[in-house]
Amino acid sequence: MKQLVNKADMLVQALPYIRKFNKKKIVIKYGGNAMIRRDLQESVINDISLLSLVGINVVVVHGGGPEINDTLAKLNIKPRFIDGLRYTDQATMEVVQQVLCGKVNKDLVSMITRQGSRAIGLCGMDGDLIQATKLIRENTDYGLVGDIVKIQPDVINSALDNGYIPVVSSIAQGVDGNSVYNVNADTVAARLAVALGAIKLILLTDVRGILRDPDDDSSLIHQISLPDVDSLKEEGIITGGMIPKIDCCTDALKGGVKRAHIIDGRIPHSILMEVLSDEGIGTMITRD
Amino acid sequence: MKQLVNKADMLVQALPYIRKFNKKKIVIKYGGNAMIRRDLQESVINDISLLSLVGINVVVVHGGGPEINDTLAKLNIKPRFIDGLRYTDQATMEVVQQVLCGKVNKDLVSMITRQGSRAIGLCGMDGDLIQATKLIRENTDYGLVGDIVKIQPDVINSALDNGYIPVVSSIAQGVDGNSVYNVNADTVAARLAVALGAIKLILLTDVRGILRDPDDDSSLIHQISLPDVDSLKEEGIITGGMIPKIDCCTDALKGGVKRAHIIDGRIPHSILMEVLSDEGIGTMITRD
Amino acid sequence: MKQLVNKADMLVQALPYIRKFNKKKIVIKYGGNAMIRRDLQESVINDISLLSLVGINVVVVHGGGPEINDTLAKLNIKPRFIDGLRYTDQATMEVVQQVLCGKVNKDLVSMITRQGSRAIGLCGMDGDLIQATKLIRENTDYGLVGDIVKIQPDVINSALDNGYIPVVSSIAQGVDGNSVYNVNADTVAARLAVALGAIKLILLTDVRGILRDPDDDSSLIHQISLPDVDSLKEEGIITGGMIPKIDCCTDALKGGVKRAHIIDGRIPHSILMEVLSDEGIGTMITRD
Amino acid sequence: MKQLVNKADMLVQALPYIRKFNKKKIVIKYGGNAMIRRDLQESVINDISLLSLVGINVVVVHGGGPEINDTLAKLNIKPRFIDGLRYTDQATMEVVQQVLCGKVNKDLVSMITRQGSRAIGLCGMDGDLIQATKLIRENTDYGLVGDIVKIQPDVINSALDNGYIPVVSSIAQGVDGNSVYNVNADTVAARLAVALGAIKLILLTDVRGILRDPDDDSSLIHQISLPDVDSLKEEGIITGGMIPKIDCCTDALKGGVKRAHIIDGRIPHSILMEVLSDEGIGTMITRD
Amino acid sequence: MKQLVNKADMLVQALPYIRKFNKKKIVIKYGGNAMIRRDLQESVINDISLLSLVGINVVVVHGGGPEINDTLAKLNIKPRFIDGLRYTDQATMEVVQQVLCGKVNKDLVSMITRQGSRAIGLCGMDGDLIQATKLIRENTDYGLVGDIVKIQPDVINSALDNGYIPVVSSIAQGVDGNSVYNVNADTVAARLAVALGAIKLILLTDVRGILRDPDDDSSLIHQISLPDVDSLKEEGIITGGMIPKIDCCTDALKGGVKRAHIIDGRIPHSILMEVLSDEGIGTMITRD
Amino acid sequence: MKQLVNKADMLVQALPYIRKFNKKKIVIKYGGNAMIRRDLQESVINDISLLSLVGINVVVVHGGGPEINDTLAKLNIKPRFIDGLRYTDQATMEVVQQVLCGKVNKDLVSMITRQGSRAIGLCGMDGDLIQATKLIRENTDYGLVGDIVKIQPDVINSALDNGYIPVVSSIAQGVDGNSVYNVNADTVAARLAVALGAIKLILLTDVRGILRDPDDDSSLIHQISLPDVDSLKEEGIITGGMIPKIDCCTDALKGGVKRAHIIDGRIPHSILMEVLSDEGIGTMITRD
Repeated sequence: MKQLVNKADMLVQALPYIRKFNKKKIVIKYGGNAMIRRDLQESVINDISLLSLVGINVVVVHGGGPEINDTLAKLNIKPRFIDGLRYTDQATMEVVQQVLCGKVNKDLVSMITRQGSRAIGLCGMDGDLIQATKLIRENTDYGLVGDIVKIQPDVINSALDNGYIPVVSSIAQGVDGNSVYNVNADTVAARLAVALGAIKLILLTDVRGILRDPDDDSSLIHQISLPDVDSLKEEGIITGGMIPKIDCCTDALKGGVKRAHIIDGRIPHSILMEVLSDEGIGTMITRD
Repeated sequence: MKQLVNKADMLVQALPYIRKFNKKKIVIKYGGNAMIRRDLQESVINDISLLSLVGINVVVVHGGGPEINDTLAKLNIKPRFIDGLRYTDQATMEVVQQVLCGKVNKDLVSMITRQGSRAIGLCGMDGDLIQATKLIRENTDYGLVGDIVKIQPDVINSALDNGYIPVVSSIAQGVDGNSVYNVNADTVAARLAVALGAIKLILLTDVRGILRDPDDDSSLIHQISLPDVDSLKEEGIITGGMIPKIDCCTDALKGGVKRAHIIDGRIPHSILMEVLSDEGIGTMITRD
Repeated sequence: MKQLVNKADMLVQALPYIRKFNKKKIVIKYGGNAMIRRDLQESVINDISLLSLVGINVVVVHGGGPEINDTLAKLNIKPRFIDGLRYTDQATMEVVQQVLCGKVNKDLVSMITRQGSRAIGLCGMDGDLIQATKLIRENTDYGLVGDIVKIQPDVINSALDNGYIPVVSSIAQGVDGNSVYNVNADTVAARLAVALGAIKLILLTDVRGILRDPDDDSSLIHQISLPDVDSLKEEGIITGGMIPKIDCCTDALKGGVKRAHIIDGRIPHSILMEVLSDEGIGTMITRD
Repeated sequence: MKQLVNKADMLVQALPYIRKFNKKKIVIKYGGNAMIRRDLQESVINDISLLSLVGINVVVVHGGGPEINDTLAKLNIKPRFIDGLRYTDQATMEVVQQVLCGKVNKDLVSMITRQGSRAIGLCGMDGDLIQATKLIRENTDYGLVGDIVKIQPDVINSALDNGYIPVVSSIAQGVDGNSVYNVNADTVAARLAVALGAIKLILLTDVRGILRDPDDDSSLIHQISLPDVDSLKEEGIITGGMIPKIDCCTDALKGGVKRAHIIDGRIPHSILMEVLSDEGIGTMITRD
Repeated sequence: MKQLVNKADMLVQALPYIRKFNKKKIVIKYGGNAMIRRDLQESVINDISLLSLVGINVVVVHGGGPEINDTLAKLNIKPRFIDGLRYTDQATMEVVQQVLCGKVNKDLVSMITRQGSRAIGLCGMDGDLIQATKLIRENTDYGLVGDIVKIQPDVINSALDNGYIPVVSSIAQGVDGNSVYNVNADTVAARLAVALGAIKLILLTDVRGILRDPDDDSSLIHQISLPDVDSLKEEGIITGGMIPKIDCCTDALKGGVKRAHIIDGRIPHSILMEVLSDEGIGTMITRD
Repeated sequence: MKQLVNKADMLVQALPYIRKFNKKKIVIKYGGNAMIRRDLQESVINDISLLSLVGINVVVVHGGGPEINDTLAKLNIKPRFIDGLRYTDQATMEVVQQVLCGKVNKDLVSMITRQGSRAIGLCGMDGDLIQATKLIRENTDYGLVGDIVKIQPDVINSALDNGYIPVVSSIAQGVDGNSVYNVNADTVAARLAVALGAIKLILLTDVRGILRDPDDDSSLIHQISLPDVDSLKEEGIITGGMIPKIDCCTDALKGGVKRAHIIDGRIPHSILMEVLSDEGIGTMITRD
């Protein structure tokens, strides 16, 4: 009985958040440990299903570095990275596409389906969703790494309208002859959030958020406003791999998304906790 | 953090119930102490808002005996009851209509509105929802007490379709010349549940449910199937004021409603606890 | 036969007016003798039903001073007026709400229903239709008399779309903590007409219209344009209780309503006569 | 003022009929003097426009014998009739089609348009509405007179749905090689009434209705039930040209139409008088 | 087998054009020999049906000079032309209306129907489609020749939405008392193309297109841009009857139509060839 | 010019077939050489795009044996077949899923997209489309080969309704704990055709059809009716790998599909030739 009362109390506390995000769109970039550990997978799927069921339009975007590396290893192809980006030759591209669109994506769809919700697994080619050209950055050749030039979100919107949770692989349709490109999943999530008019972008990572002291979780910065980002970079608080992530967030905010969140996917139900409470558990970036 | 995890866990536990009742209709008869005590009112309003928000079509039916008696007292009209029914002369009928449709109903609508949801207060005359004739029972005259002859649920359905929570007073349109009748609210709830194709009827009462020993809450019978009702009456376990309530439940079940619940409105969030868990906190009556 | 021909002729003469107002909205403030005398009630209900049936979207707004006074008298509460407004303490407010929303409103709905049309009885709390704050006018305290701050006409529009005639009590949802306020019915009608984009506002009164000589019905002014209102006030032709009524009309016209009418509710079918003919029977106020 | 009151009274008397036929379909066969005399034309157009405007779905079917004869005369073609049917050779067929579809039909559409309503002029070829084969009756050859084999009322229904009054010429699409046929307009009206699920079929004629004594208008039979038709034929009361008309009526009634009316088109507004009153002015045939 | 392969190849070559014009509107002015010779009629009907079936919204406009002259001859009315326009007195107007709306229009509808598609035959009176006043040009009186003042394309759009091919006669509703006017069919086609937002206007003529040397088909000018039209007139290449046709084209282009085509109706399937290939077979006029 | 005339003729000959299949569903099993040779791929994509564009609802189902074998070879996994079915252990299943859903499927989607149409790549997990259990056949263990138990075609229908060409991989959602199964693509096509209410099932193969003499293409049987299938098996004309294919066809026909076709994917545009002509190029199986 006590427990039931407790449960009801918890539900009632979630009421204002459920109301606030009703019918709104939230884009979640799924990745890191939360995608590898079985128990965390389940927790993420539960969170996504619940948000979808209470009337929030959830869109999931995923990459899949570890799975790609596994398959490359089996094929004796050596992964190669330049500036943190995977150099993608033709053979690698084939593996990337197979693993992301065929394995990671459809496994996610399957898990959501077994949970009782309905999902559709898509990539940039479906409905011509994501169009890209070859990434050109100074003199570096990254192979078939793509630069997004256009998002056509119709296929996502009609999936949402029909009650499906769209799950999107970070592969793009080429507009310049080459058929497909490997694109960064954080970027896909940010661009999609803008194109869909989402109110929230959530990046699942393997850190607590942005920490003043990288070795001290209690130094977590709970909230950053857009104008503060530059000084945090200068101070060296936002560094390394966090820089492209924070840049995706600021791009999304500048494109009209209300809030971006960098949260810790290693904590069970971190998505629910971030969306359905004020406190939050990671770093929230706001426009002002 | 601990508390956040706890909250997320609770939400996830509610997931299968939210899924199960999504887009389904539930009729709640609101009455007793839950309608009088301010804190319980708030808890009921929260429960109703939450169920509505997570996609369940909630319809609220209410009576209002104590408020009617208060106003009658102020007017020096003495309440009179025959067989547990309020003898309703013309002067009393006027008070009943004013208090139910004008006070109790609109106060409820106002509370739901302030909570952030949208409600519409209706009675049997609105959209010709409930049609009644004078109740004829042997040789007894109950005055303007009505016997429901027809429910036209269109006005409820269009309110639900437009996102409103319908709140219904137990007053009926007369089909025989007299303009309006006083009808029993439990009966209205049961008949409305059938007419709407609801899957659940919930009666809020001032007891724990059906008790084997009326003085011992721990003797609560958690579940009764339709065929067992008669023997429970014969054994004297279902007696007195509980008999018409259980009869409303069995009528609803025979009319196609899946489950009927007699729960304790004195327990905060009893509706949520009953709907969003397996255990339940009152007595559930099932078809078989 | 002669009579049939006559009837057909009359109908054909109404044709251009029916065509003109087809699918348009007309707000009618119902009050005065037309609401008290049984035969006039019937005539008003017939007029409203007919207009609705021939494709005009009619919205009815009502107050109910006499009925409120009757109930206050029964409860030995003495009505008190300041500047023509009812001073509304908590006890009075309860009576006002009960009588308007519970009695006058639902009786009207019931009469329309018995006539064969479908109606819904609403007030400012339903669908959060009318929001008000406490009326502040210099140093005077009017108690729970409200000042309208916002109209959300969705609930009216969805009622009209579903084929119901909305009947609205002049009670508002408080936005400042107090739950409900007593608001002036003429003002509600005028504000609603603007919010709904109505083309016509009709105020039913107990006078022939605006008279040059108050003792001579033949001195009726058939038409006034907005710019003439001020000089008519200065000349003392528009005086006393007619001033707030004419002010409601001018507010409506300034808000986009095409025409406002002050007509005599004591004349049977005065609404039909005003709407379905050129001559009119009262005073019409036009924009220019 | 007196006249205004009178007009309002008349309108209110029409209320129950307008309510009764709201959204229902009525097929009117237009013909006889009402189609020739300018003043009667205007009266018919007014009646049709009014019924359409108050929410009744009116479909007009017309022939046009006199106009056809006029044109044949100008072309020195001699009209020829067998068993009351126009023998229709190729040259005559061309004239029939031109006059009906090109002149009578579009003139009617033009008149309705000038009156302020919207109409569409159709014939059996439009939307493949009426399909016919050559009429075969014993050994007689009637030329291109057609026998209706199928009605596809989609084009009528979509015209009604879009707010147009359909006006239909009695010309049919041939299913057997010959492109078009001349068909009887009364038959078209009756068959169309059945195919559309109309509740009423009205035949405009040049007689008062069915008279017991053909020379005495006061011997008009106001109502006939289907089972009485045969005996009235045997008694010689239904004779001559009235027989095919009454047969159209009985076919319509057997096909589900509620009531058929034979009325006098020479009386102004005879349609309105028949539809919007109980008395009626012609002969009504009912199912039982 | 060879032939099948050939057929498939041809179909595949049409693919990009079908894609390009999908859901777009094309107005075709049908006239000249293509309307007189039986085999050409069939070819035009086939072309129109095919375009409609593959998802292009085709609207057909027609005149009918030769048929009008035939009937006038039978009636011993002498046709009279002023400045290339038919002087239209009342008697002629009656013939024009009958022949166009009753004969040519409905014959076309009938042929399309027999082909298996669904068509509706309309003129300017239907749905008040084309409104005109008397043509005033200096001191010349052309009788009932009309000058288009307004197009209301609703009736065309609802026909297209319901899957019908609209076929339009060049007769207009008079807005100035006279009921109908005779209007130029090329002008109707051009004005309709603008009002409908068509992307293409096609005029079927009895010449190859615009020729540099009128006696040499090989001197056909395949493409003209709007700015070049004036100099081609000055050079005397666009002369005589071609001038009003080219003026219709330029009016259409200035009104937003993308391309106008003057093609040779004497060549079988000239419409298909012009629409479903790049080469084209006539003269195409473009905006720049 | 000659060629243009020819092209138009071909298009017109396709008209009756386009009309016949308009808005109907056709399921095409894509496989064999047509999926491997680049030029044939292009021809199939063109055929599918064209059918889709002219209003036929095309659904594509594919397997991908050769591509699976290629990847297995690279991973040094030896393919193993039992009774013609691929024995699918966990490692193989992973490859099958990756290659079909990630490579073959999305490459097809990409090619259709580049051609200008819009496609969505799906498998049995998307929208819970195909549900299967482990295939049980006597004592043989085929590993993760699935037996289809349920098709839920909603996700296909909503894709078609939104204008997308659905492309389906033959992978099923497990209903018994194991997440996914490898299912036969011909079976998926046949079952999907039934569930969708398709009128046609087309199997693309590497033979001309059913041949009386396997070595003589001219012995092709153009048409077989359902009752003849058994005797053709007994005669040894339908043998080997053709038996399961013909069984898929008969299952589809028994389930309501009108016609099944076994055609030669090695012939360019064989789909178009089969669908848009009477002759056909393969073997058609009809119900009777």
